[in-house]
Amino acid sequence: MFLTRTEYDRGVNTFSPEGRLFQVEYAIEAIKLGSTAIGVKTKEGVVLAVEKRITSPLLEPSSVEKIMEIDDHIGCAMSGLIADARTLVEHARVETQNHRFSYGEPMTVESTTQALCDLALRFGEGDEESMSRPFGVSLLIAGHDENGPSLYYTDPSGTFWQCNAKAIGSGSEGADSSLQEQFNKDLSLDEAETIAVSILKQVMEEKVTPNNVDIAKVAPAYHLYTPQEVEAVISRL
Amino acid sequence: MFLTRTEYDRGVNTFSPEGRLFQVEYAIEAIKLGSTAIGVKTKEGVVLAVEKRITSPLLEPSSVEKIMEIDDHIGCAMSGLIADARTLVEHARVETQNHRFSYGEPMTVESTTQALCDLALRFGEGDEESMSRPFGVSLLIAGHDENGPSLYYTDPSGTFWQCNAKAIGSGSEGADSSLQEQFNKDLSLDEAETIAVSILKQVMEEKVTPNNVDIAKVAPAYHLYTPQEVEAVISRL
Amino acid sequence: MFLTRTEYDRGVNTFSPEGRLFQVEYAIEAIKLGSTAIGVKTKEGVVLAVEKRITSPLLEPSSVEKIMEIDDHIGCAMSGLIADARTLVEHARVETQNHRFSYGEPMTVESTTQALCDLALRFGEGDEESMSRPFGVSLLIAGHDENGPSLYYTDPSGTFWQCNAKAIGSGSEGADSSLQEQFNKDLSLDEAETIAVSILKQVMEEKVTPNNVDIAKVAPAYHLYTPQEVEAVISRL
Amino acid sequence: MFLTRTEYDRGVNTFSPEGRLFQVEYAIEAIKLGSTAIGVKTKEGVVLAVEKRITSPLLEPSSVEKIMEIDDHIGCAMSGLIADARTLVEHARVETQNHRFSYGEPMTVESTTQALCDLALRFGEGDEESMSRPFGVSLLIAGHDENGPSLYYTDPSGTFWQCNAKAIGSGSEGADSSLQEQFNKDLSLDEAETIAVSILKQVMEEKVTPNNVDIAKVAPAYHLYTPQEVEAVISRL
Amino acid sequence: MFLTRTEYDRGVNTFSPEGRLFQVEYAIEAIKLGSTAIGVKTKEGVVLAVEKRITSPLLEPSSVEKIMEIDDHIGCAMSGLIADARTLVEHARVETQNHRFSYGEPMTVESTTQALCDLALRFGEGDEESMSRPFGVSLLIAGHDENGPSLYYTDPSGTFWQCNAKAIGSGSEGADSSLQEQFNKDLSLDEAETIAVSILKQVMEEKVTPNNVDIAKVAPAYHLYTPQEVEAVISRL
Amino acid sequence: MFLTRTEYDRGVNTFSPEGRLFQVEYAIEAIKLGSTAIGVKTKEGVVLAVEKRITSPLLEPSSVEKIMEIDDHIGCAMSGLIADARTLVEHARVETQNHRFSYGEPMTVESTTQALCDLALRFGEGDEESMSRPFGVSLLIAGHDENGPSLYYTDPSGTFWQCNAKAIGSGSEGADSSLQEQFNKDLSLDEAETIAVSILKQVMEEKVTPNNVDIAKVAPAYHLYTPQEVEAVISRL
Amino acid sequence: MFLTRTEYDRGVNTFSPEGRLFQVEYAIEAIKLGSTAIGVKTKEGVVLAVEKRITSPLLEPSSVEKIMEIDDHIGCAMSGLIADARTLVEHARVETQNHRFSYGEPMTVESTTQALCDLALRFGEGDEESMSRPFGVSLLIAGHDENGPSLYYTDPSGTFWQCNAKAIGSGSEGADSSLQEQFNKDLSLDEAETIAVSILKQVMEEKVTPNNVDIAKVAPAYHLYTPQEVEAVISRL
Repeated sequence: MFLTRTEYDRGVNTFSPEGRLFQVEYAIEAIKLGSTAIGVKTKEGVVLAVEKRITSPLLEPSSVEKIMEIDDHIGCAMSGLIADARTLVEHARVETQNHRFSYGEPMTVESTTQALCDLALRFGEGDEESMSRPFGVSLLIAGHDENGPSLYYTDPSGTFWQCNAKAIGSGSEGADSSLQEQFNKDLSLDEAETIAVSILKQVMEEKVTPNNVDIAKVAPAYHLYTPQEVEAVISRL
Repeated sequence: MFLTRTEYDRGVNTFSPEGRLFQVEYAIEAIKLGSTAIGVKTKEGVVLAVEKRITSPLLEPSSVEKIMEIDDHIGCAMSGLIADARTLVEHARVETQNHRFSYGEPMTVESTTQALCDLALRFGEGDEESMSRPFGVSLLIAGHDENGPSLYYTDPSGTFWQCNAKAIGSGSEGADSSLQEQFNKDLSLDEAETIAVSILKQVMEEKVTPNNVDIAKVAPAYHLYTPQEVEAVISRL
Repeated sequence: MFLTRTEYDRGVNTFSPEGRLFQVEYAIEAIKLGSTAIGVKTKEGVVLAVEKRITSPLLEPSSVEKIMEIDDHIGCAMSGLIADARTLVEHARVETQNHRFSYGEPMTVESTTQALCDLALRFGEGDEESMSRPFGVSLLIAGHDENGPSLYYTDPSGTFWQCNAKAIGSGSEGADSSLQEQFNKDLSLDEAETIAVSILKQVMEEKVTPNNVDIAKVAPAYHLYTPQEVEAVISRL
Repeated sequence: MFLTRTEYDRGVNTFSPEGRLFQVEYAIEAIKLGSTAIGVKTKEGVVLAVEKRITSPLLEPSSVEKIMEIDDHIGCAMSGLIADARTLVEHARVETQNHRFSYGEPMTVESTTQALCDLALRFGEGDEESMSRPFGVSLLIAGHDENGPSLYYTDPSGTFWQCNAKAIGSGSEGADSSLQEQFNKDLSLDEAETIAVSILKQVMEEKVTPNNVDIAKVAPAYHLYTPQEVEAVISRL
Repeated sequence: MFLTRTEYDRGVNTFSPEGRLFQVEYAIEAIKLGSTAIGVKTKEGVVLAVEKRITSPLLEPSSVEKIMEIDDHIGCAMSGLIADARTLVEHARVETQNHRFSYGEPMTVESTTQALCDLALRFGEGDEESMSRPFGVSLLIAGHDENGPSLYYTDPSGTFWQCNAKAIGSGSEGADSSLQEQFNKDLSLDEAETIAVSILKQVMEEKVTPNNVDIAKVAPAYHLYTPQEVEAVISRL
Repeated sequence: MFLTRTEYDRGVNTFSPEGRLFQVEYAIEAIKLGSTAIGVKTKEGVVLAVEKRITSPLLEPSSVEKIMEIDDHIGCAMSGLIADARTLVEHARVETQNHRFSYGEPMTVESTTQALCDLALRFGEGDEESMSRPFGVSLLIAGHDENGPSLYYTDPSGTFWQCNAKAIGSGSEGADSSLQEQFNKDLSLDEAETIAVSILKQVMEEKVTPNNVDIAKVAPAYHLYTPQEVEAVISRL
Repeated sequence: MFLTRTEYDRGVNTFSPEGRLFQVEYAIEAIKLGSTAIGVKTKEGVVLAVEKRITSPLLEPSSVEKIMEIDDHIGCAMSGLIADARTLVEHARVETQNHRFSYGEPMTVESTTQALCDLALRFGEGDEESMSRPFGVSLLIAGHDENGPSLYYTDPSGTFWQCNAKAIGSGSEGADSSLQEQFNKDLSLDEAETIAVSILKQVMEEKVTPNNVDIAKVAPAYHLYTPQEVEAVISRL
């Protein structure tokens, strides 16, 4: 009767008697410790908005990157271990570059997401590029390709889903509820910006400023908002 | 007398005193946590029907893929860890492609199933493609070749069986009983569709809709039903 | 005094203080959980008969293969983990093929058995083809070569013996006793068929039918009985 | 209830149930045992100042190197395990040399920092250059490139941030507070020198002398102060 | 005071505080479980005699091989794990073949024994041919070369000794005492046969028959006795 | 509350919660068990003096080497595991030889020390030359190059410091105090000899003789004193 | 308070908190279980004498080799695990052969000893030739080269010392005391023989005979005494 879950949760790739992989579930916990990120898809394009935790006034806000470009037509927001996210993004950048070079056309958003997840899935396998533990990060991947705008959500198990709107990170539970209430398929990009930032405001403990929020859109090209553009969105709330 | 099963169940490939491989049995448990999938074989072809768990209204239902094409003449439904299933399906796609290229003819359904299971069996062996744990997924493989239609069922131990009808996933116990009552060898493909979806309906907790059910057939080519086609089957119930 | 056998039985290749290799012994237990198989050698050839556990009426009986051909002149019946048996049989098929190609003549039954056991013995050694645990399967290998008919029995330790008659699997204890009573060196092949199936009938919990029993002979070529041929043997009982 | 954090903290790359990587957190503790280092960015350039613990009067102070040159335009101060820091600095020197050779221009400060962190992140992955544990060191990287002066802070997880001013090591908590009070963007380099050394003085237990303090600037070239120059700054306090 | 020997005996190659290698000692125990084998050297040649445990009357006695030929002039009797013995014998056969091919003359008995022991000694070293545990077998190696007849005894530690007479296996203790009483250097080969089989008879629980005893001699060529020849020796007792 | 330091101290490269690497600290303990060695730098050159523990009068004193030449201009004294020291010294000899060959000039003392420490740092990394545990030895490296005489001290963590005078080994604490009292920068080489040996005498339990003390100098070439020269120094005390 | 030494003594290469390597110390214990060997150096050459434990009168005494030739001018006596000693001696034979081939002159005794110890030191490093545990053997290496006769003593840590006389094995303590009393530098070779064998006689439990004692000398060539020569020395006692 002293058998607890901990008997099964340290082997990176060991099933528990109930058929669970605890190390993946714990990596998912790492994301619940992360800052909140929100993605909203509209017919015009996709909006990403993230909270930036500026732990010191001496920190350069622009160096806290929680939204990154993968290719001209794809960007992503992240929550969890930032160094892990960088590895995944770097991998995706190489993949999309190679695709452009080989086929003379951009990689689709789904293929890019699949490539990212293939790497994430193979943790513990001793491959060249894979890690010895699950990647402790979730991504919201926003893109625009021949199928129009799309938003994908990935988790540490290497699984991905396509979404209309999605929140990740410590405030994701509340933010997801608000998104379900406020989202509809006919939102304009401007409305999506407002919704994303207003929900972020609810789950953040601080006042929202251009210093602690980043916004980007893919519509159809990736664009990271300048502080002035962020300020403009905030002032609309 | 303090010896419990847990003494033997963490080594990926260790026999217990009773001759059991617990990690494989635990992987089989992972499948009991999965959504239900049903396959029915008729003389005209094979029908696959799966439950899709749409955890949020903001999720794109079409991105929750529980039925996948392997080749023109082979498709499969899955239950368990989706990322694991993707690896197996991807492996099978390469195998069937190579076979077509080398021999100028489609791979038989049994050979394709055997190829999938060879990979599944070699977990823990440190091979290039194999994983360090059992694959936590069961597949229903529907196909059509020179021997006519066939339906195979695979489990995480790398074993497979040919079936007339089979259910996997959390509702498999009840669904298998219903299949035994309702199946006969002279079913038409239409009747098989109706039986598969009506049994799925019994084991699902929600109302059946084109959003949370996918249907495919191999008769003799693989075809994933459009939402309209799914709706038509549901309306027949 | 707190030392129990379990201190030594998880290392794949560790001796206990009494000089035992427990993982091999546990693999042997896996076979005691398996279905029963019987082999009987006569001057005319060898008969193999196996119980098939058809867990569902929807399972295709012919897809539950417990007797397999290795080469024209060699077949085998198995009990234990079927996926493990497939790996061994596949290995033996390649060996016999190579032998025919290199020497222009069939491989002897003993050499084939030795090749199978060499692979079985090297578990835990990290070789290309070997497994990281003992193979959880026993085989009855029936063959016919320049020395006439022969029947071999292999176990998970990689040891083999030549027998006149032998039973393996869950009913092996009772079946072996019956074989000792009924076997004599002057049996005809027909009598051997009758003895094998009648003993199988005693140890099976169900009525014997062509669906749950397979029979094969090597006399001098391998032949798997059709359902009609199996029915004919059953009707003779 | 006997489960403590220690169940999860010895595997180099194992998540705890709360999603934490303890070995990285413990490496961060190693830095809290280290001597204090301070960096301050001004428009004219960046100043680095470090405490040197001279444990014996017979030790040659100049051989206790806590500030090192990476390239003409980049230097770094360190706190934690000095031998680990040397490996990182050596890696960065090779990277910046290679960049100059390949592209005929200096590597940017951010790229250099990224290269350092890529190595730090891959601990436990068995690569040629990576270590089997996290690097137990934090760096303050001061540089000057086409974007003007910049100051980066790295930690053992392979994450980095850009800062205006930052303290690391055992006195970092108090020093960071003082920096927040005294820093403004219009400081001259001379004022930055004074602030850095006066804060260092507060957190050190000994009298500040050219023997136990090192100062360097990148403005725009790296320069390590001579004892006379250090003396001059101390005398200004 | 709770420290027992078991703290040290599972690592394949770990010394206990008293300087013992328990896994080797446990492998030696495996031999004490084995059937008895006896070797006697005379001036005319060497006699080997072994007990064969025929566990079922349906087993083919000739397939229970406890005496094997290594080369024309060398044979060996074994006790312990038969599959392990086969690996050692196969290795020795290749070595003696290579020696004949390279030097045009037979390998000496001592060199052959040394080659066997070199392989046995390197258990746990990860070599191509070596095993991950000690070989659980002892051999009595009988041979005849330019130095006349010789008899060697090997144990699982890879050590060997030259003997005039030696018994191994479960009855070795009693058999060794009898050998010391009855052996003298002037025995004829016939007398050695009689002594070996009469001592075997004492330690076996069954009646001695050509079915459960094998005899071989190297005088100067290896010869395994036919059942008739064994019968003749038995009838002399 | 049962968590003790020992939870963290067996993994070669594992941080404890306080950020310590215990295996390195334990290796440092190995040195405290070693014999005492002393180095003193003067303007004329460096003197090394070591205690030799001659455990038996039958031991050849000259074969207990605690001072070794690395190159013409570099020598070292050691305390700790002598076999480990030999590996480091051998590595340094190859490095200095290679340097002379490649550049036609002697390697500097600092570069030589750095090369030694690079090897020491990489313990547990699985490299060709590195060890699987820290090197259990400290060195006093005395040399003379274009910068004049220098004395370095290395420890098992791969860190090094430049010193004016330093003691290592079991008597280092007392010896270091004496060195601080007696050292000044204007000592002649003769005075340094006297100080080194007189301090050694204080910490040794036996009478100082040419048998149990070795002395060497680098001034500017390495020279190991003959017994007569050692006797001369002792007689000056 | 339940922490005992055993916490640290199973890792092959792990320091205990006091800086000890227990596996090496336990290997040294293995030697204390071994038979006694004695070496005595004179100006004329070196004498080696060993006890041979003949456990059965049927054992061939000459096959219990405790003294072996390495090269014409070098021999060694051993105590501990004989199979380990064989590996070391074989390695030394190859080294001395290679040296003769490359340089056309014999290898010095010290270089040969160093080569042996280099191999012994690298246990646990995964090299081609090294073992995964310390070699459980001590050697007394007797040789004669351009520096005259010499006697070296090696232990499992890979350390060696030059001696005038030395005993190893179970009786070494008493034998070493006797050697200190009886040894002087002016012994003749004959006197050394008498001393070595008379001391061996004191520590052996049996009567000394040519069967249980081996003697060899290197003076200047290696020579193993015939039984007659041994008898002659014994009769002088």
